[in-house]
Amino acid sequence: MILMPQKEFEVNRGIVEISGKIKKLEAGQGVKSSESQALVAEPEKCSPAGSFDVNSSTADEQVAESFIRQAMEIIVDEAVKKATNVQEKVCEWHSPEQLKKLLDLELRDGGEAESEILQRCRDAIRYSVKTSHPRFFNQLYAGMEPYSMVASFIAEAVKTNLYTYEVAPVFTLMEDAVLRKMIKVIGWEEGGDGIFNPGGSLSNMYAVNLARYRYCPDFKEVGMFSAPRLVILTSQECHYSISKGAALMGIGTKNVYTVPTDERGRMIPSALEEKIMLAKSEGAVPFMVNATAGTTVLGAFDPIDEIADICEKHNLWLHVDACWGGAAIMSKKHKHLLKGIHRVDSVAWNPHKMLMASLQCSAFLVRDKTSLLQHCHSARASYLFQQDKFYDVSYDTGDKSVQCSRKPDAFKFWLMWKALGSRELEQRVDRALAMARYLAEEIKKREGFRLVLEPEYANVCFWYLPPSMRNLPESPELWKKLHTVAPVVKQRMMKKGSMMVGYQPLGEKANFFRMVVISPQVSRQDLDFVLNEIHNLGKDL
Amino acid sequence: MILMPQKEFEVNRGIVEISGKIKKLEAGQGVKSSESQALVAEPEKCSPAGSFDVNSSTADEQVAESFIRQAMEIIVDEAVKKATNVQEKVCEWHSPEQLKKLLDLELRDGGEAESEILQRCRDAIRYSVKTSHPRFFNQLYAGMEPYSMVASFIAEAVKTNLYTYEVAPVFTLMEDAVLRKMIKVIGWEEGGDGIFNPGGSLSNMYAVNLARYRYCPDFKEVGMFSAPRLVILTSQECHYSISKGAALMGIGTKNVYTVPTDERGRMIPSALEEKIMLAKSEGAVPFMVNATAGTTVLGAFDPIDEIADICEKHNLWLHVDACWGGAAIMSKKHKHLLKGIHRVDSVAWNPHKMLMASLQCSAFLVRDKTSLLQHCHSARASYLFQQDKFYDVSYDTGDKSVQCSRKPDAFKFWLMWKALGSRELEQRVDRALAMARYLAEEIKKREGFRLVLEPEYANVCFWYLPPSMRNLPESPELWKKLHTVAPVVKQRMMKKGSMMVGYQPLGEKANFFRMVVISPQVSRQDLDFVLNEIHNLGKDL
Repeated sequence: MILMPQKEFEVNRGIVEISGKIKKLEAGQGVKSSESQALVAEPEKCSPAGSFDVNSSTADEQVAESFIRQAMEIIVDEAVKKATNVQEKVCEWHSPEQLKKLLDLELRDGGEAESEILQRCRDAIRYSVKTSHPRFFNQLYAGMEPYSMVASFIAEAVKTNLYTYEVAPVFTLMEDAVLRKMIKVIGWEEGGDGIFNPGGSLSNMYAVNLARYRYCPDFKEVGMFSAPRLVILTSQECHYSISKGAALMGIGTKNVYTVPTDERGRMIPSALEEKIMLAKSEGAVPFMVNATAGTTVLGAFDPIDEIADICEKHNLWLHVDACWGGAAIMSKKHKHLLKGIHRVDSVAWNPHKMLMASLQCSAFLVRDKTSLLQHCHSARASYLFQQDKFYDVSYDTGDKSVQCSRKPDAFKFWLMWKALGSRELEQRVDRALAMARYLAEEIKKREGFRLVLEPEYANVCFWYLPPSMRNLPESPELWKKLHTVAPVVKQRMMKKGSMMVGYQPLGEKANFFRMVVISPQVSRQDLDFVLNEIHNLGKDL
Repeated sequence: MILMPQKEFEVNRGIVEISGKIKKLEAGQGVKSSESQALVAEPEKCSPAGSFDVNSSTADEQVAESFIRQAMEIIVDEAVKKATNVQEKVCEWHSPEQLKKLLDLELRDGGEAESEILQRCRDAIRYSVKTSHPRFFNQLYAGMEPYSMVASFIAEAVKTNLYTYEVAPVFTLMEDAVLRKMIKVIGWEEGGDGIFNPGGSLSNMYAVNLARYRYCPDFKEVGMFSAPRLVILTSQECHYSISKGAALMGIGTKNVYTVPTDERGRMIPSALEEKIMLAKSEGAVPFMVNATAGTTVLGAFDPIDEIADICEKHNLWLHVDACWGGAAIMSKKHKHLLKGIHRVDSVAWNPHKMLMASLQCSAFLVRDKTSLLQHCHSARASYLFQQDKFYDVSYDTGDKSVQCSRKPDAFKFWLMWKALGSRELEQRVDRALAMARYLAEEIKKREGFRLVLEPEYANVCFWYLPPSMRNLPESPELWKKLHTVAPVVKQRMMKKGSMMVGYQPLGEKANFFRMVVISPQVSRQDLDFVLNEIHNLGKDL
């Protein structure tokens, strides 16, 4: 127990009357340390005349400060230094049952001593996967970004919500500054609007909701019950949040029409137009197209310009899910991947992916200047958005959101952008894509490795064929065998803790690895290591 | 610029070939310090044979670590010690236009020096509202919780997502442990399921979606287009997220039927039944009732037991929005407020409110054992939820969510619960409510103060009448005058920085103050100060 003994709380302010007696309590069951004996007051009934029933465990700021300092040391040592050290393991694998025992998860009546809690902090880090490690390639985030990490600590310590300027003046303005800058980078010369959300999935759902609202604002009030059947169009490789959003929003997953992709995973514009015509012929109402800039698995970019032509022709809202691929726009060399993005209606872009902002940092941007976000989502809660405030209440942005509490995620991007500048962000993107290029070339050189396709972004997808399969003829049987390789290699790398690389099937394609390079800490040596290690782990299969 | 010069990166791993030349670059426009000159490589075209075009600003871990340590010092000094010191201001008010100038928000091509970024960290804290300050009473969160704060730092540093056990083994198990414990505390003897969400609004929307799915699972696929008109019932004092959810989910705000409340702000059960019958008589389909346990403004608790009877009779899903009031269940003395909660279908409960977990920490709990959460929300993304993994994939809980990225918020509650034990959590609730009781009694004693109603929870709502209004007869004119008092007092307290207390109108009631005591750091002296200060700031009105 840290929150401590009964006492006159801060004598200079100390008029909380403590009426309880002090006694020693036994520590909670299962608490091991003898330090964990707590001093707790026995409550007494008090007169209404000023004194009251108070189990007054008032905060001891010095103890709290000392605890925070010790914990911060642990965080730097274990979650920063050790977690990014290539000599250390990426993960210390334990099955759920084993880990439950190691962590002693049960929550009890009694509290634990400071030393025990500090050990729990160490353990939480120890048994967590080291996503900052230079050999963590399992997701679309990786690496350690010190500025963004510090910003996230500050956001946690300052502990506020973005609904009103009143309680979040700094973060409100920073979000506005970041959104404006992102809108400028996208090339919306007339400006626009936006909001940071807890994840790209919600950003994509915002797009669906705005598109629906623009099509018919009445749906907000009356729902979809007597509406014509609405249809969303998206590629078959799009993120699953489009489907989740359709389910949540009363549109239905069957009304998400998937458009075929070409051999590189890009939406085929002529096929999009066919699907639009199909929906119309069924009496349904296509109202939006979701184009993906950087698909999750292949890293494919739908041809935005051509899709925009079709959307203009049919008067459809065009949203671009650029959660993963949006970073390319920071690079003069690679921004061509997003050609046409200045023409679209909305964009989801997650700086927490390629640009390495702390999780989560997800922007939804809309090329609208008529307060569509506000109109579509507002509920005008009078306890929060009072209109008789003494400042310009247009700075109270909370009613643009479907959330009430909302984190100041933009700050994490703002501080790192200030520290690095656009140029360094550009270099990170260029370097990551150069690394991917290197890896692809290396794969082509090595026996037993086969690219799924030439990468155009940071995703490098490939199969590993163990020697026993290398001379088999191309056949369904070979692919069936190959399908089992990646899961076993994955299991072995996890148990060894040497690296983490993702795998998945895709359509008819057997399980393949997806490597994604993001962090500037990753060296070519790490990429060579990945290929060598996959071979070492899988050569007996 | 911290990310530093071109060099052979970590010589023992150093096979990244650096082909650029080193040159000094001018610092970005507007960057003031001479430190901000960056060393950046000039890119060169490289051969495909292993070397490549690399603007290789590889990370310098020592510089990063030093930066993080310095920033942590700032956080402890400014956001912990100073922010909780009652001698300091709660806020340093600046208008948006003034603050924009102070913060220099623009994002530029060039980065800034470490010293500048550290100053930006100081400024971000300085100009933020000190929600941990003992005189911050503006929202339903307040105070500094050291364990939860540390847990949030760890979560940020470890940087992972809760979708799979593979990348979040520790946090997955901790979320499970916390959810189980909360379910036990609620009293669902058969168990249940749950998920932590970014805010109570989303938790309430989960309830709507589950209730709808239980009513008709087909809606997930086909949407609401040919569905009967669905109706949600909730009290007129409910949180605005019910309405936002109805809009987002294709149900429509007009299909949220508001049930009248009694003089204390509690839903009137007979009125609920009347509204149900009304909806049915219109040919609509009532499918869920939202009861509120702890309304936002008055802190009213709808009578759950009586509402549960009605829901059973009409076969309606009963959700309880206990985001604010859920904490009462930790207290033997106050849990009666939630009588009947063991009978309901789902509960939203935010430990980040009364229990002081770091923002955000919001649980959605459901008394279902048939994997309704999973069935309702799943999209089975094959790149994430591979079924051929080597561990029990029921631990991959991400597909229960409408998000993809999801923060390990449960950890913030788990660590503080471990440190404090249930007993200390109980004492905090009891103490907060005793403080509210004290404040209410004090208000009744003081001239010029008038309670809106006797508090039954931590919300103390009152009017302040300046001397000039005290002898006026009760009349619409008096109330019209009184309506203007709170905004002016609020403006003055903000500009002075002495405290922050919220105000709002409610229905026909003129603007009144809402005080909420949460933090154990708050003393009776702070409450006396609030009343004195309101008088000082408003006596001339």
